[in-house]
Amino acid sequence: MASRPQSTPAHRAGPLQPTADARCALRPVGRSRITGGFWGEWRRINAEVCVPQGPALLEAAGNLHNLRLAAGQAEGEYRGVHPFLDTDVYKWLEAAAWQAADTDAAPELDAMISLIAAAQQPDGYLNSWFQVVKGGERYRDLRWGHELYCAGHLIQAGIALHRSTGRAELLAIARRFADQIDSTFGPGNAVDGVCGHPEVETALVELYRETGEPRYLSLARYFVDRRGYGLLAAKDRRAAEAGPAYCQDHVPVREATEVAGHAVRQLYLLAGVADVAAEADDPELRAAAERLWAEMVARKTYVTGGLGAHHDEEDFGDPYELPNERAYCETCAAVASVQWSWRMALMTGQAKYSDLVERTLYNAVLAGVSLDGERWLYVNPLQVRDGYRHPDGDHGVRRVAWFRCACCPPNVMRLLASLPHYFASADDCGLQLHQYATGRFGDESAQGAFAVRVVTDYPWNGRISIVVDECPAKATPWTLSLRIPFWCNGFRLVIEGEPTEAVPEDGWLRLRRAWRPGDALELELSLEPRLAVADPRVDSVRGCVAIERGPLVYCVEGVDHPGGGLDDLLFDPAPGLTEKHDPTLLGGVTVLHGSGRRRGTTALDGARGGGDGAASWWPYRSLGRVIRAKARADAGIAAAEQFELTAIPYYAWANREDGPMRVWLPTS
Amino acid sequence: MASRPQSTPAHRAGPLQPTADARCALRPVGRSRITGGFWGEWRRINAEVCVPQGPALLEAAGNLHNLRLAAGQAEGEYRGVHPFLDTDVYKWLEAAAWQAADTDAAPELDAMISLIAAAQQPDGYLNSWFQVVKGGERYRDLRWGHELYCAGHLIQAGIALHRSTGRAELLAIARRFADQIDSTFGPGNAVDGVCGHPEVETALVELYRETGEPRYLSLARYFVDRRGYGLLAAKDRRAAEAGPAYCQDHVPVREATEVAGHAVRQLYLLAGVADVAAEADDPELRAAAERLWAEMVARKTYVTGGLGAHHDEEDFGDPYELPNERAYCETCAAVASVQWSWRMALMTGQAKYSDLVERTLYNAVLAGVSLDGERWLYVNPLQVRDGYRHPDGDHGVRRVAWFRCACCPPNVMRLLASLPHYFASADDCGLQLHQYATGRFGDESAQGAFAVRVVTDYPWNGRISIVVDECPAKATPWTLSLRIPFWCNGFRLVIEGEPTEAVPEDGWLRLRRAWRPGDALELELSLEPRLAVADPRVDSVRGCVAIERGPLVYCVEGVDHPGGGLDDLLFDPAPGLTEKHDPTLLGGVTVLHGSGRRRGTTALDGARGGGDGAASWWPYRSLGRVIRAKARADAGIAAAEQFELTAIPYYAWANREDGPMRVWLPTS
Repeated sequence: MASRPQSTPAHRAGPLQPTADARCALRPVGRSRITGGFWGEWRRINAEVCVPQGPALLEAAGNLHNLRLAAGQAEGEYRGVHPFLDTDVYKWLEAAAWQAADTDAAPELDAMISLIAAAQQPDGYLNSWFQVVKGGERYRDLRWGHELYCAGHLIQAGIALHRSTGRAELLAIARRFADQIDSTFGPGNAVDGVCGHPEVETALVELYRETGEPRYLSLARYFVDRRGYGLLAAKDRRAAEAGPAYCQDHVPVREATEVAGHAVRQLYLLAGVADVAAEADDPELRAAAERLWAEMVARKTYVTGGLGAHHDEEDFGDPYELPNERAYCETCAAVASVQWSWRMALMTGQAKYSDLVERTLYNAVLAGVSLDGERWLYVNPLQVRDGYRHPDGDHGVRRVAWFRCACCPPNVMRLLASLPHYFASADDCGLQLHQYATGRFGDESAQGAFAVRVVTDYPWNGRISIVVDECPAKATPWTLSLRIPFWCNGFRLVIEGEPTEAVPEDGWLRLRRAWRPGDALELELSLEPRLAVADPRVDSVRGCVAIERGPLVYCVEGVDHPGGGLDDLLFDPAPGLTEKHDPTLLGGVTVLHGSGRRRGTTALDGARGGGDGAASWWPYRSLGRVIRAKARADAGIAAAEQFELTAIPYYAWANREDGPMRVWLPTS
Repeated sequence: MASRPQSTPAHRAGPLQPTADARCALRPVGRSRITGGFWGEWRRINAEVCVPQGPALLEAAGNLHNLRLAAGQAEGEYRGVHPFLDTDVYKWLEAAAWQAADTDAAPELDAMISLIAAAQQPDGYLNSWFQVVKGGERYRDLRWGHELYCAGHLIQAGIALHRSTGRAELLAIARRFADQIDSTFGPGNAVDGVCGHPEVETALVELYRETGEPRYLSLARYFVDRRGYGLLAAKDRRAAEAGPAYCQDHVPVREATEVAGHAVRQLYLLAGVADVAAEADDPELRAAAERLWAEMVARKTYVTGGLGAHHDEEDFGDPYELPNERAYCETCAAVASVQWSWRMALMTGQAKYSDLVERTLYNAVLAGVSLDGERWLYVNPLQVRDGYRHPDGDHGVRRVAWFRCACCPPNVMRLLASLPHYFASADDCGLQLHQYATGRFGDESAQGAFAVRVVTDYPWNGRISIVVDECPAKATPWTLSLRIPFWCNGFRLVIEGEPTEAVPEDGWLRLRRAWRPGDALELELSLEPRLAVADPRVDSVRGCVAIERGPLVYCVEGVDHPGGGLDDLLFDPAPGLTEKHDPTLLGGVTVLHGSGRRRGTTALDGARGGGDGAASWWPYRSLGRVIRAKARADAGIAAAEQFELTAIPYYAWANREDGPMRVWLPTS
């Protein structure tokens, strides 16, 4: 094993580290820390609960046993039926590796690395399923085999440990696997193929960045460009029914006009596309990534930032097809969306990408983990009806300790463990704050070191206090850029006690001056609650509003509305919303209260035949009858039908008792 | 082979023939014929196109080859991957058998029966998949094996041929299989189990009716009552994910409060439940059937009568979860719904069951077959968006000649071939017309023979002319009952030239008098177009109306609206609808025209930051912004934005070119 180097390269502590040659408008910064507040608490839960629980869960689920079988260290049956079970271990290792930058490394880390080393075959190949179950067969079932997908997660874990602690042994294992792949795939090699589940593309670009070896970038570009040519043609009924989009083989990505197929596969691929575009300076690929991001957001994104409408094939779904009760919105898709959007933010410098990162983090990602860090959701619907029958299995809406297909929990763990990486960036002119959290955010450049300290109770309070902590000694002007979220209806800026007028450009408030250490700013974003309506083509939420406050999307839950279900709820927007922060509720949340009423019994009068198109047993009625009934109802609304409506942040739902929930509230 | 008996028992020519002891309010009549009009034309297409095409399609798909393998008459690989491929042959045979009552039997019928006889094992067992692929293994995989399901369809085909032509040889084959099952399953026998796919239950009751053998009724009751006790417990991941409702093993049917799981399985089971309830005089089962029908219709039925909301597991879905673009609405579920509702109509005498039969026949069933009878739909969505990407496989929305899983086409064939059976009934007091078609409908009772002739251009024209054709010679009063559809806003009745006042009771116009041959009635049902709205809990269609006329649900199709898509369509209910019958369009349909407009470009003004919660790239906006934009838009509507909207009957959609379609039209 490599010995720990004397100086930890903490300036590179993040999953994404473009080379100096990359066409990126912004660079990630390496000296960021989150030390408190909302995200500080979530990172504490991740460090103290989520990540420490991992090894025992991986042991119980059989993942480690399977690697021991591959290493010849155990006997018995392979456990589980998926060829990608090794990745749960790799993603947990990546999380533990990022965590190790802040605290002592998890005690199980060394043993796991030794096990992986022992399981690896002499030429670098490593996949417990194929080694144990398939008798060493390799790369024969690229559509379903996930071998390169597994390699990608191994590479990312190796890079994380190297960047976070300087330890090189896991990176060396990963690199041996990468070299084996590089000698097998691509022009002049034995196999012309791509993996059914993208992931290795982005990992290979990062391996290029970490090692300087250009073969990895070339291989990543090859894997990006060989999709859409039928290399993954279906060979069985199951695959044929899923179709080529399921495995991202339906169209060359340079020609694609819309995101399609399995959402997580599409998103991981597009993270790789952005990486290749930046490092290979490929404007066509960059244009494809920009085009597909815009299409996805405009037509296939839930208000929570969630992605993927279909349970069936885990598919994106059609444009504007965003059903609430059957929203798939896999937690992994939210994590992947953050990863892709962050790459786009750095490549382009545009604030909208970090706007989506913010929305996705606070809503779609966080909803995937319970407030205590012990239970998970795989799918994240926006509506649960009264009397919902909770299905068994991974795809229910009741939080569970682990999944049969446990991709999501370690994905959230690795994201939270590396979270500061996504909050700030730098360029030659200065520092950009993309997200707001209590902590210290800084970097070094040719001009010197920049850093700011931030104190904030965001997202509960819009006040963000920023103090310049470190900057070049001589009074050279530099720019501190603050992202003004697109949803923000107004903000107030005070610099050194002076109210200051400033106008954001394209989402950035660019403050250029000769900042000096100790200079203080206060930015206050208006968090006035908002009511959102959807593009009218989103049929599923016609006549409904969603409540938002700051970056948070809200929902109503049955447990806060005793005495009846939510299916008959009508929200009245006119009286507005009041807010109250309750530090004892759900770990401390700002609750919003509004006015609503329940529809009275919708019983029809049962007349049939010769009537006006209604029958008591039939749930559809004539428009005229409904208009007349509504007039009667409006005339006779009793005070008793009115009730107070309580909304909580969506991420905190399903943490009390089973029951109905909805994000979108009908208004009539 | 049995020789053809001299007199064809045409008085029993229908799939359902309760015994004299059955607790049924009404009896099916055996002497019905449809001779013209709407359904006459559909039955002609079925007889001349659909059914004759069957043998070649079954040959091409391998179903006959597989039976030859089982019979030792062919060599080679088994074709297809489903254990229920024999049923495509059986359902086609059932269709051909009912057809044989009207015309000469299909020439391939004898050869197919011989093949089935040769494939049957000496003890009566018959299933080509298990005999050929599984080495003769039997009843070991009841959850997925479909062996009893296949037996059920064989029994129904045998009964059909016997009732329709008097030929007994297929019935004898079926009975040998039934006896083998009866000696294997149930108390005192080797196997305590039920089939994962219900169907044999209703078939066994009918076999009891046809043969008088009470063992078949007992066995059917056993199969009904052993569900819900874990006999089909999942043994693998796939089955565990589907859960017990998928195969109707989640709850004893007597205790069930809602329809659940795989829609077709649930519906076939409930047809059997109704049969057992009637023949075994089991009030508890009857109450369960009534309760589940009411629940299904009130909460899980599309306006077309379609059933089954989920592609995933072909599941009914949750209450009020009725997405339009992903409606599964399998054609087989519509056929099964007609079968179950007809059993309920006969058992209870209540008109509402035939109301649903009518709606389902004209919309959900007919949509499954193309106007020329040559192509089919497996799933029947109520919406296709602009730019829909047509997926490959059985579950697309482009009509195809056959499916890999070809359950639906022969199901429609057997229903159309036996259609007159569902149109009239009798009791001791007289005759009931449940559906209106040109033809002759009659029966015999202890009092004598009754029959009426009907001439109508229904559903295009509401006028139904009825002439008494045959009735007891002496002037005994008897009752002619006419169903007044629940949607009907008004009707006019003329008897022997005299306008006559009459009030329907529970959907029936009961006309009791001493009818004599030649007596003439004219019933005119108002077919004024109607606008339907849904129960407000059906979130998917909030703010929308559906156009209906008579029993037909209408839709708008892209091909009738050149110049743009339907996603931006807004329907204006105020001006009303005009109608025009076009004999040249889509085989002759009444087209409805209304007023609509397209929403203008929904582009936002792109302001971001410090704005009011909108960004050009984000599809959700603040309510205030939308209200202001609407005020501007309302003030400036140009005439050019208005356009004429053309609606066609839903059943006729997807018969021209690919394009968008919608049943539910937004009004604001």
